[in-house]
Amino acid sequence: MPAAKSGPTGQKAEQPGSRVERDLLGEVTIPPGALWGVHTWRAVENFPISGTTVGAFGELVQGLVRVKQAAAGANLALGYLDPVRAGAIDAACRRILENPSYHQQFVVDAMQGGAGTSTNMNANEVIANVALGLLGEKPGTYSVLHPNDHVNMAQSTNDVYPTALRLGLLLAVDPLVAALEGLHAALDEKARAFGAILKVGRTQLRDAVPMTVGQEFGAFRTMIATEIRSIREHATAFEQVNLGGTAIGTGLNTDPRYAHTAVAELRALTGRPMTGAPDLIEATSDVGAFVLFSGVLKRLALKLSKMSSDLRLLSSGPRTGLGEIALPAVQAGSSIMPGKVNPVIPEAVNQVAYLVAGHDLTITMCADGGQLQLNPFEPMIGYCLFTSIRILRAAIETLTTRCINGISVDRARCQYLSDINIGVITALVPVLGYDTCSTIARRALSENCRVTDLIVEERLLSAEQLAVLLQPDALTSPNVGRQPA
Amino acid sequence: MPAAKSGPTGQKAEQPGSRVERDLLGEVTIPPGALWGVHTWRAVENFPISGTTVGAFGELVQGLVRVKQAAAGANLALGYLDPVRAGAIDAACRRILENPSYHQQFVVDAMQGGAGTSTNMNANEVIANVALGLLGEKPGTYSVLHPNDHVNMAQSTNDVYPTALRLGLLLAVDPLVAALEGLHAALDEKARAFGAILKVGRTQLRDAVPMTVGQEFGAFRTMIATEIRSIREHATAFEQVNLGGTAIGTGLNTDPRYAHTAVAELRALTGRPMTGAPDLIEATSDVGAFVLFSGVLKRLALKLSKMSSDLRLLSSGPRTGLGEIALPAVQAGSSIMPGKVNPVIPEAVNQVAYLVAGHDLTITMCADGGQLQLNPFEPMIGYCLFTSIRILRAAIETLTTRCINGISVDRARCQYLSDINIGVITALVPVLGYDTCSTIARRALSENCRVTDLIVEERLLSAEQLAVLLQPDALTSPNVGRQPA
Amino acid sequence: MPAAKSGPTGQKAEQPGSRVERDLLGEVTIPPGALWGVHTWRAVENFPISGTTVGAFGELVQGLVRVKQAAAGANLALGYLDPVRAGAIDAACRRILENPSYHQQFVVDAMQGGAGTSTNMNANEVIANVALGLLGEKPGTYSVLHPNDHVNMAQSTNDVYPTALRLGLLLAVDPLVAALEGLHAALDEKARAFGAILKVGRTQLRDAVPMTVGQEFGAFRTMIATEIRSIREHATAFEQVNLGGTAIGTGLNTDPRYAHTAVAELRALTGRPMTGAPDLIEATSDVGAFVLFSGVLKRLALKLSKMSSDLRLLSSGPRTGLGEIALPAVQAGSSIMPGKVNPVIPEAVNQVAYLVAGHDLTITMCADGGQLQLNPFEPMIGYCLFTSIRILRAAIETLTTRCINGISVDRARCQYLSDINIGVITALVPVLGYDTCSTIARRALSENCRVTDLIVEERLLSAEQLAVLLQPDALTSPNVGRQPA
Amino acid sequence: MPAAKSGPTGQKAEQPGSRVERDLLGEVTIPPGALWGVHTWRAVENFPISGTTVGAFGELVQGLVRVKQAAAGANLALGYLDPVRAGAIDAACRRILENPSYHQQFVVDAMQGGAGTSTNMNANEVIANVALGLLGEKPGTYSVLHPNDHVNMAQSTNDVYPTALRLGLLLAVDPLVAALEGLHAALDEKARAFGAILKVGRTQLRDAVPMTVGQEFGAFRTMIATEIRSIREHATAFEQVNLGGTAIGTGLNTDPRYAHTAVAELRALTGRPMTGAPDLIEATSDVGAFVLFSGVLKRLALKLSKMSSDLRLLSSGPRTGLGEIALPAVQAGSSIMPGKVNPVIPEAVNQVAYLVAGHDLTITMCADGGQLQLNPFEPMIGYCLFTSIRILRAAIETLTTRCINGISVDRARCQYLSDINIGVITALVPVLGYDTCSTIARRALSENCRVTDLIVEERLLSAEQLAVLLQPDALTSPNVGRQPA
Repeated sequence: MPAAKSGPTGQKAEQPGSRVERDLLGEVTIPPGALWGVHTWRAVENFPISGTTVGAFGELVQGLVRVKQAAAGANLALGYLDPVRAGAIDAACRRILENPSYHQQFVVDAMQGGAGTSTNMNANEVIANVALGLLGEKPGTYSVLHPNDHVNMAQSTNDVYPTALRLGLLLAVDPLVAALEGLHAALDEKARAFGAILKVGRTQLRDAVPMTVGQEFGAFRTMIATEIRSIREHATAFEQVNLGGTAIGTGLNTDPRYAHTAVAELRALTGRPMTGAPDLIEATSDVGAFVLFSGVLKRLALKLSKMSSDLRLLSSGPRTGLGEIALPAVQAGSSIMPGKVNPVIPEAVNQVAYLVAGHDLTITMCADGGQLQLNPFEPMIGYCLFTSIRILRAAIETLTTRCINGISVDRARCQYLSDINIGVITALVPVLGYDTCSTIARRALSENCRVTDLIVEERLLSAEQLAVLLQPDALTSPNVGRQPA
Repeated sequence: MPAAKSGPTGQKAEQPGSRVERDLLGEVTIPPGALWGVHTWRAVENFPISGTTVGAFGELVQGLVRVKQAAAGANLALGYLDPVRAGAIDAACRRILENPSYHQQFVVDAMQGGAGTSTNMNANEVIANVALGLLGEKPGTYSVLHPNDHVNMAQSTNDVYPTALRLGLLLAVDPLVAALEGLHAALDEKARAFGAILKVGRTQLRDAVPMTVGQEFGAFRTMIATEIRSIREHATAFEQVNLGGTAIGTGLNTDPRYAHTAVAELRALTGRPMTGAPDLIEATSDVGAFVLFSGVLKRLALKLSKMSSDLRLLSSGPRTGLGEIALPAVQAGSSIMPGKVNPVIPEAVNQVAYLVAGHDLTITMCADGGQLQLNPFEPMIGYCLFTSIRILRAAIETLTTRCINGISVDRARCQYLSDINIGVITALVPVLGYDTCSTIARRALSENCRVTDLIVEERLLSAEQLAVLLQPDALTSPNVGRQPA
Repeated sequence: MPAAKSGPTGQKAEQPGSRVERDLLGEVTIPPGALWGVHTWRAVENFPISGTTVGAFGELVQGLVRVKQAAAGANLALGYLDPVRAGAIDAACRRILENPSYHQQFVVDAMQGGAGTSTNMNANEVIANVALGLLGEKPGTYSVLHPNDHVNMAQSTNDVYPTALRLGLLLAVDPLVAALEGLHAALDEKARAFGAILKVGRTQLRDAVPMTVGQEFGAFRTMIATEIRSIREHATAFEQVNLGGTAIGTGLNTDPRYAHTAVAELRALTGRPMTGAPDLIEATSDVGAFVLFSGVLKRLALKLSKMSSDLRLLSSGPRTGLGEIALPAVQAGSSIMPGKVNPVIPEAVNQVAYLVAGHDLTITMCADGGQLQLNPFEPMIGYCLFTSIRILRAAIETLTTRCINGISVDRARCQYLSDINIGVITALVPVLGYDTCSTIARRALSENCRVTDLIVEERLLSAEQLAVLLQPDALTSPNVGRQPA
Repeated sequence: MPAAKSGPTGQKAEQPGSRVERDLLGEVTIPPGALWGVHTWRAVENFPISGTTVGAFGELVQGLVRVKQAAAGANLALGYLDPVRAGAIDAACRRILENPSYHQQFVVDAMQGGAGTSTNMNANEVIANVALGLLGEKPGTYSVLHPNDHVNMAQSTNDVYPTALRLGLLLAVDPLVAALEGLHAALDEKARAFGAILKVGRTQLRDAVPMTVGQEFGAFRTMIATEIRSIREHATAFEQVNLGGTAIGTGLNTDPRYAHTAVAELRALTGRPMTGAPDLIEATSDVGAFVLFSGVLKRLALKLSKMSSDLRLLSSGPRTGLGEIALPAVQAGSSIMPGKVNPVIPEAVNQVAYLVAGHDLTITMCADGGQLQLNPFEPMIGYCLFTSIRILRAAIETLTTRCINGISVDRARCQYLSDINIGVITALVPVLGYDTCSTIARRALSENCRVTDLIVEERLLSAEQLAVLLQPDALTSPNVGRQPA
């Protein structure tokens, strides 16, 4: 987190090109080039918290702009906004959407009080001033087009902000899913490539029964496939919005047709199947969709973490660990130990997962703090969700390209460990019985030899019989070793 | 949590009716009346942790028994188990399911290492001994019917335990949903009864715009309706099981038809649409379904907590708080303050919600700790989920019957607060304009009078006009106060 | 968690020996043998949540009784309570302290609303009825000695309950510390016994530089020593209590000498250096001491979990893992795999640690929910702390006696891994230089041979020189291999 | 969190002033102006996670530089480093410490794998190149002064990084404590200013007994005073460091005098009482000091959150809430509701607190993931702690200057609520008895009148007697209303 930028603080000396704006608390001087106004100025002063601005979350900015565009469209259609102003607002929104450099005008700190009011005000002011520019007016000429009266017409922060959050999250989820699909493809390739290599399966870190390396990577692939479905399905909850509810969901001061019209505009503008919530009172105060999606992200994070921990375990060594696979070397591992290479990419993934879990707790506490008709802590909920999605996506991409793609298997090591594994005797229980197998297993362990050697030595089975019973296919799938009684 | 019962500890002196069992560690004396055996004995010795036994979770016991019954059925159908033994196992399972007093034979501590092995062993032993009894044999006559060879045939803890957990959770969810439906009905009744009572809506604890008490309770009802759907939908994930995967999901030592047959038996026995997981390797190590369901329970908990906090706020007073509603008095509130009655039921609900959130964290850490082909921490996951479901259900029932059902509204107070609320002026913005309304609002605040009085006094609107504009319907739903420009 | 006992529910039919009590809500029938009264009855009806009663937490009961005893002493000393009643209360308290069977009279559910009022009422009623018995009166003869007027004299739940919680926690901490001291001693013995055995140190699961097994267990010992100090130091915060603050800390309705006198009584009765909080208003609403101690318990839990995870890693195998140490076998590990033994004790410890972490979150949310002059969620805070302490203690004892004490080292395996470890070359960097060492390390890895063999083969150093440079002492402590430039 | 900057990515086309560096993976081109080298380049490529660089945490950079300076001093003193190189390193360190613009050379992402190796490498490279510049050499002339051989001499990331983290945290704590002292002073002023104003104390959101506004703010002050002590005391744990332990705490390849000498240098350079850990093996893997300090920060956060929630409650209204105090207006509260002003500053503080709690969970999981001789997740621990401290400090400063300082009390409202409060009758229990008081209380509630009026009306006490008994001093402190029996 960078040090908090002071924003407007201290810029009170009048500079050329600056302008004066006022609110109920008095006058402030807006610096030259700023497309935001007095309400944004106040918020920057009030919330010098994290140094991370709303503009750092491009998807949220896009969500806000889409809401404003949809509202303007609805207000035009219903006759409340004239075509000139509505057209200017629409054009301003399109310009901002096309040009990410406008994001830097969203200067309010992402960690803010006020339930998102400052973010909404920031959007109103920037859009108004961009629109004024398109109309040939100077910034701040609000008599022509007003941030509140026109850009915010028929809206309240309390319906705008949650709707924008949802839209922004839908936008942010797409590349996350794409990253997961890349990871899925990489794992699929490894599962196929390693399909025939026998290895020791382990439960509770103890040698268990045989499997293939391909099965192990296939399980990772299945895990990710499940997550892709889960993310996609749960994200659809964000398609239902409370736009039109205004302050508390009663739709006070809106035309009865407004909510429906505004959501239809949103649907048309975004190409997504947006719908209005059936109970706008409930939808205005409820943050349940965010809470559940955070849980969905946490599950994804935990699966990535589990996979990363497994990769670190399986590649441990090179000499004194499991050493079944090798992760690609991506940087020198130690300033003191020559030749040491560490599993740095999976380690980064673990840590990202733990931050996502932390954010889930933060969201939990934010959700619990909602009171009566509004949850004032949605800005932090948004901060956590957007950050979690971003770092998950980055971690997944790095994991795919800098780790999974380059993994190789030490086939000799896998074979060697399979050969000495005592657990393979489990496959002979149907033939030799549990008691005999236990005796052999214990003897192998204490005498430090292979169970197969003991079995041949004791003439329980011939080497040929063993070869048939212990062929990889029989070991790694349901089999007919066990005969009906 | 009660003090840990010592279970078999110290019962080494031979009592009449006791029997001796042995395992690889030696002999132990099983006390008279015990239907469990040596493996259970070891586990009770090893895990004197919480004092809460597996038997305290009846649904888990039922899940275990159903799995054993299904496996016996499959083993019979495929010819691996003879009809006499299969029939005895089936009869024993039915007997245990019908008679909850057998739950007390599941004496292993719910908090245990070993990935559920001890729980599985406990089930094998109890079922074997009940079956032996039905066959006219004494407990421990395992040569006739063996806990491992017959009851556990073609099974591993690693597929039995997760399958039983899932079945148990499905059983536990039903009464939770029923409790939620009761709460939903109670809220619905209140929403209807209070539908016409105007009150002040509040955002950020500040007076906002009007709504009805019915809308407020209707939002609670909507919240609960959403949760009922969510719980039901997400619980279906538990219908997919890994039965047949045995130790690590490869199905080692099972007939190729076994997994399919056993799941079909489970489906028939339970009447639920159980299916086998498509990737049994993945399904054996993955705990994602538990993690997500815990998130679903947490969301429910948070909504109950939010509602409870709102009820406490709205009923605060009786004199110096909001005082809009009254919760029924269910006990004396204070030993020192005469007549004080506290919102004890909602307070209990808040606390239950916080424990559920804590359990979600525990499950998160358990999930993260899974390694390679198994997650050894499923017993704690089960403990947390079953406990969360149970206390949520209890809290919901108490909330419904001892709080919601008895809530009354102080109509005079609601009316009075509505009358003095400055925020009502928002409804006049479309008529008087934002600036005029701001001036009136500020004057009303500083002069401590009503905005309606000021408006009439200043002849901005007549009392009659105000009466029309401020009638409840206009205030609490989208309206045509705002005219197209 | 056992199923909720119904307590008094449904016991409305009059039984012989039952009695009737009344409160502002009406009459109830108290069953024969019950030493609790109407307020307890109400609470049992209101909170059928967890099935775990206050009586299950013996230390809390003792804390409550001590507070009542101290208050009676102070009220006697200051002349507010007559010697007969004061003496009867004192005697009743002593009887309950001496006889744990009275704990079963504390039947209120541990999860309750009302900030502990019901627990306080339960204590008042039980003590009053025990005292009445000592005075030769029947239970319920409150005209002689009244639960509120006499037992609760000069008290409020709001000072009694937090004080009792603190006292109870002090009592519960003692055996926890004793368990830790046992663990410390066990680790110390292992550190000494394994002091001379060379092994490979590992960082990031990669082979690093040499150390001894004794150093590894010594680090565990140091960790536990730190925790013992930390637990002891932080528990002293509980010696400061808010007794005498009554309802909100103002000490309303108490003699100005009361708070001081009551705390002095408490000090004398418990033999602990109890003091009164300097700001009773703050002390009444603040739960900071509980929050911090929960953090302290969580740290302990995490260290136990880390140690347990290490033990599982180090003992992994027996053939295909690290296999440096062997944990004692305490039960059969698998119903399907002959001879498999699992690290079940450390696994139980991990899970206990995760529940403690979950409880820390619950406490966090309870703390956040405190409002104005009281935190109503102290009962859940108490539940979590007492449960965490109990399961930690049990886990530590099991870990000590059933795992640590029986750990053995596979010396041959440690030696073998040390011999093949490439990381040992780090010790030769001061002699051979970083570049040469890197070359040797890489060659050893690719040619699958030992670095020492290569060094001798390339005549970089003689076998004798190597023997000196690589002797265990030089490898496992600061050394003079590196010469000043 | 800003979008991840690409760092060196894509800068492969050779620019004038660029240079080539190489490591075991090959060559890379370092852009002109970069004082970092190949290892930093790799890390930037590997970890495009958060976009927040190590350089954003100035205190961590300072900690790193101090460690390097101390090591160079020790290596010089012990004769391992020549005066020219040692002097250049020392001068470079001083230059960096004096000039924060060098922080932007610490370009590695704060979220990284590798246990901090990349951060250490980044520091080594920057210091080497600054030193080379001071020696008149071009960047990259490592034959003269080498990042690893000289700057990192006798060090490992595994002792450097944790030591630097601790130093950095000590630096970060100072301004946090200063901010708390500012808050304490502000609360103290309010406690004094509001000392005489009577108000209603509330427990469980129900009207309780009287107190003064000064007592309420005094409790906040006490809370903060406790936190200042707690933060200071617990931060001292960071004065104990593992410098000299090198890779795993054995001090391999260090002079036996090195650890002692280096820590002494650190003490001299920082003026802080730094000491070496007694068990360096344990100290190298243990992160307990971070875990506990995170718990300490969480407690602080919860107290700030509780205070903020109280301020929001007490200022709720302006008409239909408690309305006892007014928070200063710092920005317009609503775009739709004229004149609405919201408690935005406390709301920001609540959210910051919840993120701190989330970070505590992240740290918990990082701590749990430590394995064997090192915890590889310290970078995320550092990220969370530094971020938590920074946002707490910012939140505290904003709370102090933009909220607490401007709080005013509505004395008339407080008086009015005190007058109608039924709970005041508690003060008359010693005079009138509990039963009479209960009757009066119930009648007052049902008849909607004041208890004092009823008492006078019923001639229980005269108005004069009441005036004496209910004078503020008697109500808000221990008093003699209760006479000895």
